[in-house]
Amino acid sequence: MPNSAVSTNAFADLRPSLPPLPFLAAPGYAATDAWVAALQAAMPDERIVPFSALSPADQAAVTVAIVANPDPAELAACPNLVWLHSVWAGVERLLAEMQDSQVHIVRLIDPRLAATMAEAVLAWVLYLHRDMPRYLQQQKEQRWQSQVYRRAAQRKIGLLGLGALGEAAARSLQQAGFPVLGWSRTQKHLDGVDCYSGEAGLAAMLAQTDILVCLLPLTAATTGLINAQRLAMLPAGASLINFARGPIVVEQDLRTALDATHLQHAVLDVFAVEPLPPDSWQWTHPAVTVLPHCSAPTDKESAAQIVAGNVKRYREQGLLPAGVNRQQAY
Amino acid sequence: MPNSAVSTNAFADLRPSLPPLPFLAAPGYAATDAWVAALQAAMPDERIVPFSALSPADQAAVTVAIVANPDPAELAACPNLVWLHSVWAGVERLLAEMQDSQVHIVRLIDPRLAATMAEAVLAWVLYLHRDMPRYLQQQKEQRWQSQVYRRAAQRKIGLLGLGALGEAAARSLQQAGFPVLGWSRTQKHLDGVDCYSGEAGLAAMLAQTDILVCLLPLTAATTGLINAQRLAMLPAGASLINFARGPIVVEQDLRTALDATHLQHAVLDVFAVEPLPPDSWQWTHPAVTVLPHCSAPTDKESAAQIVAGNVKRYREQGLLPAGVNRQQAY
Ligand SMILES: NC(=O)c1ccc[n+]([C@@H]2O[C@H](COP(=O)([O-])OP(=O)(O)OC[C@H]3O[C@@H](n4cnc5c(N)ncnc54)[C@H](OP(=O)(O)O)[C@@H]3O)[C@@H](O)[C@H]2O)c1
Ligand SMILES: NC(=O)c1ccc[n+]([C@@H]2O[C@H](COP(=O)([O-])OP(=O)(O)OC[C@H]3O[C@@H](n4cnc5c(N)ncnc54)[C@H](OP(=O)(O)O)[C@@H]3O)[C@@H](O)[C@H]2O)c1
Repeated sequence: MPNSAVSTNAFADLRPSLPPLPFLAAPGYAATDAWVAALQAAMPDERIVPFSALSPADQAAVTVAIVANPDPAELAACPNLVWLHSVWAGVERLLAEMQDSQVHIVRLIDPRLAATMAEAVLAWVLYLHRDMPRYLQQQKEQRWQSQVYRRAAQRKIGLLGLGALGEAAARSLQQAGFPVLGWSRTQKHLDGVDCYSGEAGLAAMLAQTDILVCLLPLTAATTGLINAQRLAMLPAGASLINFARGPIVVEQDLRTALDATHLQHAVLDVFAVEPLPPDSWQWTHPAVTVLPHCSAPTDKESAAQIVAGNVKRYREQGLLPAGVNRQQAY
Repeated sequence: MPNSAVSTNAFADLRPSLPPLPFLAAPGYAATDAWVAALQAAMPDERIVPFSALSPADQAAVTVAIVANPDPAELAACPNLVWLHSVWAGVERLLAEMQDSQVHIVRLIDPRLAATMAEAVLAWVLYLHRDMPRYLQQQKEQRWQSQVYRRAAQRKIGLLGLGALGEAAARSLQQAGFPVLGWSRTQKHLDGVDCYSGEAGLAAMLAQTDILVCLLPLTAATTGLINAQRLAMLPAGASLINFARGPIVVEQDLRTALDATHLQHAVLDVFAVEPLPPDSWQWTHPAVTVLPHCSAPTDKESAAQIVAGNVKRYREQGLLPAGVNRQQAY
């Protein structure tokens, strides 16, 4: 590889002598090697180095870091860091940990990730729509009984969040014949989607929603949003899918609504604490499906291409990709 | 109702004095009253009478019967019966029971039924594709572990049968991003579907199929089609969905393939004996999902409209709808 020399200021100096782009993996975040390989393959002219392998000279040279859930101390050891590229779409933890830093934070916006999430939303909406939890229970009881079939056209899906993921989910659900409602911070206008915003809009949407799907970022404004009061606004027998972040839902309020059978079922991919601790009520609640944060895994090859495109624009034109808005926190 | 008088020969005599159209329900087939109401609403000028309420004069007047799984003795009591309209899509039982009769048999071809089946195929393909059986098992074990995600584009779905239901299923699967292969008796040419026919075509399709979906009619040629030899042609780790008829699959061969983990999972909506008897191995096999023949229930309102259209064309123009081919037996 010709460009393995390390210059100390690649931001100002765009010659092909490139500093390392360290890939920083959080403790416990698996497959660092696979990530390094995917990123290196997508950026053959860069040196991709796991954080743990950086020399002190390397650390000083780093201007860009590609991260999953990094250790803030490792980032602090790179005094010339200009920007961070997360390979995740949700960066609330990074934002919290970096709140005293001026580093520009870029999150992953990847159509392939959106497609994977849209597929997950469709898959678990159909799981609920086609009564799979009930049929699985009936199988355990060796009970042969058809449930009344309701058509997709008669089942309204309410999306919390109409961003990259929410909009892709809306399209998949529409293709499958479901009426789709959506709620966002700013008012949206999406073809065929009944769009709401604001507190009154949320109430109006919840009152009509049969299956509520959460695809919001975790921010101060969304923490605890799905509480007892809002769950009560859903029609009796509604269900919840949370594919965003655990703390958006007040877990005790959800449990109460499920126990009261006001809510029929919850599919939860995210939790206040992850991995979900062994003594958690969700594991054994008959009306809860627990998933291990698997609804939309980042695709390494695709994410590496997106990151590579952003790094290339930065190297060649000095352009920073749009970053997370620190005010809005997403 | 003006037309409640009973004429003895409505077939030759097309005046609006109409004989009863008896709705025949098999013993145990629920909701006869609801069917009668739906049919009556769709055909206000006809007299829709449950078979049990037909007088001897009525029986002689009957030229058309609308049936689910009728008692052959009840049909034999109508000497002037010209045609039968099944409200089901699969009529193998009717054909077997009526093999000595010349009565014209019409099966239900209803776009809404096809849509419901296509939705079921998509729902349970996504159930397998997104590893739901494994995640449900992990939840029981309180195990937090993501499975490797494979994109829809990398999962080939093989359809046995490309008729009304198979073609609708192919479209839904394609929309969701799955590559679709299909097999039929006569060679088909469907946009974007890799079409096969014949014995060699079946082998070629099975060798590439990750999820095999059966949507064939039950005939002499399809009985026992999915046997040990054909299951062995599937790649290791493939799965099976049978939404057609139980006897198309050799249940013991399926069990052997599942026990050997050559097949990963089977979703079975139909069985050699239905309801599935209590001692059947399928109920408790960890790699089997049992459904109570619920994948595509006939929609009463929609089916009643289709039947009404066919009856109207017969009454007004003397036209019989296309019937089941007794040679092909579907
Ligand atoms: N479980 C998983 O595997 C997984 C994988 C990837 C991502 N995620 C989660 O999914 C989240 C969404 O991702 P994305 O890419 O779609 O984000 P995005 O493009 O930023 O969209 C966020 C959406 O939420 C809306 N929103 C934000 N704050 C709101 C508030 N206070 N009230 C109402 N609406 C609000 C936004 O409204 P505006 O349109 O008005 O800005 C926008 O429509 C991520 O933050 C991450 O937590 C989970
Ligand atoms: N589980 C449920 O709830 C449910 C509900 C409704 C229907 N069903 C079942 O679904 C079946 C299919 O319905 P449909 O409306 O799609 O039927 P259809 O329109 O008659 O289509 C049947 C398809 O199977 C193919 N086929 C028939 N015999 C074959 C053979 N020996 N070898 C290869 N291909 C063969 C036909 O080939 P050609 O195109 O060459 O004729 C056709 O493509 C029904 O018969 C019924 O048993 C189940």
